[in-house]
Formats: sequence, C-alpha cells, structure tokens
Amino acid sequence: MQQKDTALHVMKGVGRNHDGLSETPRRTFKKKKQTPLDLEHLATQIRAGSRLELSRGITLVESSNLEHRAQAQQLLQELLPDTGKSIRIGITGVPGAGKSSFIEAFGTMLAKMGKKVAVLAIDPSSSLSGGSILGDKTRMEELVKQPNAFVRPSPTAGTLGGVHKKTRETMLLCEAAGYDVILIETVGVGQSETYVRGMVDFFLLLVLTGAGDELQGMKKGIMELADTIIVHKADGDNARFAKRTMQEYKQILHFLQPATPGWITRALTVSSLEKKGLDNVWDTINEFVQTGKDNNVFDQRRNEQTRDWFRTMITDHLIDTFYGDPQNKQQVSNLEAKILNGELTVSQGVESLFHDKV
Amino acid sequence: MQQKDTALHVMKGVGRNHDGLSETPRRTFKKKKQTPLDLEHLATQIRAGSRLELSRGITLVESSNLEHRAQAQQLLQELLPDTGKSIRIGITGVPGAGKSSFIEAFGTMLAKMGKKVAVLAIDPSSSLSGGSILGDKTRMEELVKQPNAFVRPSPTAGTLGGVHKKTRETMLLCEAAGYDVILIETVGVGQSETYVRGMVDFFLLLVLTGAGDELQGMKKGIMELADTIIVHKADGDNARFAKRTMQEYKQILHFLQPATPGWITRALTVSSLEKKGLDNVWDTINEFVQTGKDNNVFDQRRNEQTRDWFRTMITDHLIDTFYGDPQNKQQVSNLEAKILNGELTVSQGVESLFHDKV
Repeated sequence: MQQKDTALHVMKGVGRNHDGLSETPRRTFKKKKQTPLDLEHLATQIRAGSRLELSRGITLVESSNLEHRAQAQQLLQELLPDTGKSIRIGITGVPGAGKSSFIEAFGTMLAKMGKKVAVLAIDPSSSLSGGSILGDKTRMEELVKQPNAFVRPSPTAGTLGGVHKKTRETMLLCEAAGYDVILIETVGVGQSETYVRGMVDFFLLLVLTGAGDELQGMKKGIMELADTIIVHKADGDNARFAKRTMQEYKQILHFLQPATPGWITRALTVSSLEKKGLDNVWDTINEFVQTGKDNNVFDQRRNEQTRDWFRTMITDHLIDTFYGDPQNKQQVSNLEAKILNGELTVSQGVESLFHDKV
Repeated sequence: MQQKDTALHVMKGVGRNHDGLSETPRRTFKKKKQTPLDLEHLATQIRAGSRLELSRGITLVESSNLEHRAQAQQLLQELLPDTGKSIRIGITGVPGAGKSSFIEAFGTMLAKMGKKVAVLAIDPSSSLSGGSILGDKTRMEELVKQPNAFVRPSPTAGTLGGVHKKTRETMLLCEAAGYDVILIETVGVGQSETYVRGMVDFFLLLVLTGAGDELQGMKKGIMELADTIIVHKADGDNARFAKRTMQEYKQILHFLQPATPGWITRALTVSSLEKKGLDNVWDTINEFVQTGKDNNVFDQRRNEQTRDWFRTMITDHLIDTFYGDPQNKQQVSNLEAKILNGELTVSQGVESLFHDKV
C-alpha cells in the first residue's frame, strides 16, 4: 500500500463543497429527490473526490427504501474496483477515554501531512447511553475544517447488524473517493468492537491511567482484539503515571494472545492535548501494515473478513426471516417458558418448532 | 444446594455393576437390542443409581438413530424433574497442563468424601490433535475404582454443536442418577471452552509455571471465562515457582473482566501429585456456589444458559438446514468466489441468494 502521492487525491472541487457538510446528508439527498438519480454521474463525482456527492452516496447506502437499496448496490458495484486501497483503523475505548479528542488530533495530523482521512462512527448503544458519539458538532472542530477530511456521524437507528453492514459499505464508498485512512470509532462496551474488528486492518484500544480500573465495564477479551493499546491523556503531570500504566499493560500483554499473527501488540502513551506521541502511533501503523504485507497476513485477513461478512449476513438473513414470522416468534417464546419451567427438554422444544409443523 | 446427604446416593447396587464400565457403552447397548426398550424401567434404574443403566441412557442420548433420538427425548423428559441438583464444573487448560491428573486427584478426594462424581469430556479436536482425552484407559485409574464415581469418555465423532448438545443431555442424565458434582473436561484451544462455559456453573483454568508462555496457543479471552485459575504441578521444588506465577496471574486478573458477576476470579496453586491444594479448590467452589445462591446469580445464569442453549440450537438448525441443501452450498461457494474476486458486493451476493430464486 503506497501512501506517498496522497496529496493528488485532494481535488480542487473539494473545498467548494465544504459547506455541504453542515447539512445533514439525508436532507441533502431529499432536496435532489425530484431529479432522477444519475448513478454513473454520482460514481464519477465520488471518484473525483466530491464530499457532497460522497455524502449523497452514503445516504443512499444507509436508506432502507427498497429502490434506494437497489441503487446503492449498483453504485457500490460501479465503485468496487476503486475500493480496498486505504488503511482501515478501528478505535475503541470506554466512554471518557478521549476517543474523539484522539481522532481530532490524530486525524488533523494526518490531514496536514496530506493524507485524506475519513472518520466513521458506529454507536448502536447511543440511544441507551444517552450520548451520541459524533452528535456534538462542536467536537472535532479542527478536523472538519481540513479540506481533505471527511467526518460522518453514525446512523442512530437500525440494528447492530444493519449498522455493521452500512458502515462497511460506507467505508467502501470512502475508499472509492480516495480516502487513504479510514478511522472507525466505536464504544468498547457492547458487541460493536467485534464487528469493527471484523472490518478493519488495525485496531486501537484507548485506555487511561489507573490501568485495570477503567477496564471494568469493557467487553471481555477486548485487549486481545487490539493491535496497539494507547494510554491516553498522558498530559502534563499525568505523563509519568501514563508511562507506568503503559509498562503495566506491556506486562499483561505478555500473557494475552496477540490480535494479529506475526505482530506483537504494543502499548504506547499519547497526549492529544499536547500532540505528543501521535507520530509514534502513525509510525506503528505503517510498520504494522508493512509487516502484514510482507508476511501476507494483511491480504489474508481482508479476504477472511469479506468471507466472514458474507457468511454472517447469510446467517443474519436466516435468523431474521425466521423470527420475522410472528408465529415463530410466539412459538419460541411459548416453548422457552415451558423449557425454563422444566416441562420440556431443549431438544424437544427445537423438535416441536421444526418438525411438528410438517 | 445441599450436598450433605450425598452418601445416600451411593446405592448398594452400584458396586455390582462396576465391571460394566469396562465394556464400551455402545456394545452394552447393542447387546440388548433384541429386547424392546422399557424406558420407564430405564429411568427408574438410572434414578436408583445404576451406572450400567446410566451408560445405556447416555448411549441412547448419543445415538444418531432417529428412533433412539425419540426414545432419548422421552427418557430425558421423564428424568427432567430429577435434574439440576449438581454443581457443574468445567475444567480446561492447554494439553500438558495436567487436566486428567487433576481430575483424578480432585475427583477421588470428592468421592472419598462421599460425593458422587461424574466426569465427562468434550474433545472435538481429538481426531486432529491425535490424542483422545480419556482414550487412555490407564488414566484416572484411582478414580474409576471409586464406587461413587462415573467416568464417561467423549464421543469422538460428531460436530461440535452435536457434542455440545449431547454433553448437556449426558449431564442431565448424570444429575438424575444423583451425581452431586459433574466435572466436564475440555481442551483450551478451540471453541469447546465457550460451549462448556455455557453449560457449567464454575469454570476452572489450569495453567503451568512460566505464566504467559503456555498461554500461547490458548483461546483469546480464555482467562475471562475462568472463575478460578489453578497453577498446576506445584510439586516439590516447583512449588515456589508456582506461587510466583500465581501472584503474576493475580495481578493480571485485576485488569480483566471477571467471568461471574459478584465473584472475583481467584488464582490458586495445586499439586495433584502431592495432593496439595485440592481441598482449597473445593472450598473455593463451595464459597462460589454460596455467593451465587445468595445474590441470585447462580440460578439466573442457569436460566440464561438454558435460554441460550435453546436459541443456539434454533440458529444451528436454521444454518444446518440451509447448508444441508447442496444447491445452496454450491451457490454460496460460487458467490463467495465472485465476491473475493471483486466482481460482486457482499450485499448483492446475499440478495441473489435469497431473492433471485423467488
């Protein structure tokens, strides 16, 4: 993967469309509803780097309207040859770990280096936890001002499986638009990190000093998903505590399984506030990519991810179809009650579900 | 859960059937094929503690013959009210961690205390790794001599899902036969520990000194499945290394999520050779059960396990049915090739699989 000539991707047209970002993409799309959608034109504009048209494309992908879905698939098919050329990075951490400020600082650094940076967010729990990751528009203020940055909040509705599917396809659109680095943000409390781990090349876990304590509430096994652990907020006086915590994590990592074959999971300290250690993270990622390209793990994982994605979507479809039938849903619930009550064995429950109806 | 009057379960008839163990259960069952199966009699004999009849019942449960399967479900239904009264303990560790010698020593101690102890094994990988867990009949020599112990090797054939289902049902039969403690042995390398964790109350992870190194090759997140980590082979001179390793594990456990809410995962040392620390393990398990009964986690988990089991079996059935159709299997494989080749998006693949045929 060559990132040298990234600046080439920063098309002149991009700046012009910058203000389009402040509109919600859905509105942008609706406004144009009258004109028939020219998919070829849209694809060309996305390829040319138009952020406004990229936003429209993503809105199309996110739409649950049947006609839109068909159009979205045509668009993706058209753009497929232009995908796959970015570095896909997942970023997770408990709320308060400073994911947004890290992405703001890290993304801005990359953008200023001439990289095209896209930020996507998966937050299926936002409606429950009360806080939307990117809902607060004042966050990532500096990053959104960069002409070669693209920030896209997560759709708040939809099942996790849906978010998963849409984020993957959004990522492909961003790649077709020439983004070199895709940052996918997620909260490390639910199932979303497993999904994100399944779509990225490199996975970052952000933690704070006082190691261990803040891991309470994080998903089990999350450290074993990470390719690098960042002890964040290593600012001012906190820097030496962060260094100590980093050492503790290094010790623990020795006991855990690395996330990527051939790569020993690292621990680093970062201060996004003071912009310290960010270059280190980028160097680490480049080293990771180079190692993975050399030993073929990088491409193998991408193929596996695609295969898993396909298999998972098939399984999801089977499950959705089954429980989508209200009669099945009711019967499962009735049988479950009998099983929990000790009236029926589990096997009998399954048997009566699938064989009694024949 | 009262374990006080366990000795009552040790029926006089058990000793008489002792030699029946050396026959393989399948042969035992086949021998009786001529006589029509009296399920009520079988249930009564199992309830009365006959190890021979318990073996026959398990063989029935393990059979893939359709008629046997129906009979097995009738038997389970009949015995259902007598199940659920044991402590279910899962035991895992890398090959060489000494699982068999631990079970031999621990099980014998419990049997001598008057507990009825059943040992089951799940080893879906045995045909691959070349070593069957309980295949070597000279292992657990002392335990199998105990009149109130029952040792059942795992079926070598069958999918993991099948083993999973059968081990659960075998466990229920053992409970109906009055076993107070069920020990389920598994190898900590594949997916089987997750299955075992899903059917037991308490999960033990056996490790060796030189912590960390031997965890290489173990499943990710396995430490977070364990309620207690045993540093095994703390024999003679090795005892002080084991103590040090135990301390290291304690430190690491501080950073990880406990497997059971309300219970802080412990680290202990055990020498099965010198029979040291075994009583400590038993005390820990009793404390765990008491804590779980007091805060209701124990019963809640069992209900969740049953619910998950039912839901997993439904999903397995849907997947098996789908891929069981050779046409579907072929189509998935064709589409997968096109997707990996960049000719088709994943969504289009799923779409053409389920909607093109309509």
